[in-house]
Amino acid sequence: MQKIKCTFSYDGTNFSGSQIQPNKRTVQAEMEKALSKMHKGNPVRLYPSGRTDSGVHAKGQVAHFDTTLQMPSENWKKALNALLPNDLFVVHVEEVATNFHAQFDAVEKEYRYIVLNKKERDVFKRNYTYYYPYPLQIKKIQQACKLFEGTHDFTSFCSARSTVKGSKVRTLYEVRCEENNGEITFILRGNGFLYNMVRIIVGVLLEVGSGKTTEEDIEQMFAAKDRTFAGKTAPPEGLYLWHVKYENN
Amino acid sequence: MQKIKCTFSYDGTNFSGSQIQPNKRTVQAEMEKALSKMHKGNPVRLYPSGRTDSGVHAKGQVAHFDTTLQMPSENWKKALNALLPNDLFVVHVEEVATNFHAQFDAVEKEYRYIVLNKKERDVFKRNYTYYYPYPLQIKKIQQACKLFEGTHDFTSFCSARSTVKGSKVRTLYEVRCEENNGEITFILRGNGFLYNMVRIIVGVLLEVGSGKTTEEDIEQMFAAKDRTFAGKTAPPEGLYLWHVKYENN
Repeated sequence: MQKIKCTFSYDGTNFSGSQIQPNKRTVQAEMEKALSKMHKGNPVRLYPSGRTDSGVHAKGQVAHFDTTLQMPSENWKKALNALLPNDLFVVHVEEVATNFHAQFDAVEKEYRYIVLNKKERDVFKRNYTYYYPYPLQIKKIQQACKLFEGTHDFTSFCSARSTVKGSKVRTLYEVRCEENNGEITFILRGNGFLYNMVRIIVGVLLEVGSGKTTEEDIEQMFAAKDRTFAGKTAPPEGLYLWHVKYENN
Repeated sequence: MQKIKCTFSYDGTNFSGSQIQPNKRTVQAEMEKALSKMHKGNPVRLYPSGRTDSGVHAKGQVAHFDTTLQMPSENWKKALNALLPNDLFVVHVEEVATNFHAQFDAVEKEYRYIVLNKKERDVFKRNYTYYYPYPLQIKKIQQACKLFEGTHDFTSFCSARSTVKGSKVRTLYEVRCEENNGEITFILRGNGFLYNMVRIIVGVLLEVGSGKTTEEDIEQMFAAKDRTFAGKTAPPEGLYLWHVKYENN
């Protein structure tokens, strides 16, 4: 038995999220279907680093699975890509230690969130950015980003539907924002993210940029430990699971 | 009665082309539906500069229609965009002389064709570029582009299904190609284009880039005046109707 670590990207537009659900087109179902074909119809269970919601994209999602098949990494990659639909692509495959676990061994995740801050819609970017046509003060956003860095209780920045039972303390190593020709990219790296956390933080930062929320408001949000204190959740189409980091890479 | 000129963009991915067809989702049908809503349910006929095929995009398609409604241009634009689906967007509206005709008055069209020339697929660009992973000699393509400029009989570079009855002589003012980080953009401007002409020319130019076709071959293709002499038609997803030019702009 080998354990395989697989890095893949997907366009979330036409998926009902990543996690398997009956009668829905999901990333996990498509991956498992391809894996099953490679294993003579036997089921193969895929264990991803975490879920993404409907409409959310991935540049570098990671998952593991067990197999008895022996094959060079390049062949795994080719075989899987030949079987997968064209909104799902395997970027990298490697054999890993049998105790590797894509979810529990992840030491850092990076998410990116892209906002299209132009007056006019762009039909070609509608599924890949959040169209937000209102004026934004980037400097203010960049300053407020710093408030989210470090170790905090993120209860106020996590969906009330979160099923996390333990601590909601997480550490964000980096929260920053870049503007380039009307496209604003938020980059968030941390040791873990709660349900909807990136989208809620981006929602708050956009309100900072439009002057509706101040840095003191954010401090109060943290202190409240109550989801209702932070603003709207930014929509899924701007969000990308960008990279998942493990001890070795 | 006013005549309105309307410039619009669309993502062709989910349209069965631009021209109205029974039981299909088409650009023209969506536009006419929105116009009809603005005219209390009365039908309004839209006259575009020309058709685009299923999967082909437009940055600046132009059409005209007649109306009895009186409204500033900005309001036309807002009202239409509020009614249109989000893969269709009106960029500009203006009142024009009553004898204006979007098709017959067009003096120049610009098409662009984007090729993704990278080893690996990109899930986010699959509907917006033609994925062509084979090595290409850009210099050779750029030289061969020049052979298509000027006035020629383009019979060999036009679909055999073309319904054009008259001359297949057209003038291309510019045919060029730029490479930027693995994305190759072909730019073609001319006084008119035959059915599939851009996609056939790009198909031939890609064969030049991969060394299968020479400049002499292209001269023979022109001379043959027979579609079977030129190679494969490049697929629709890389093609954009970029701009339509009229006397005044």
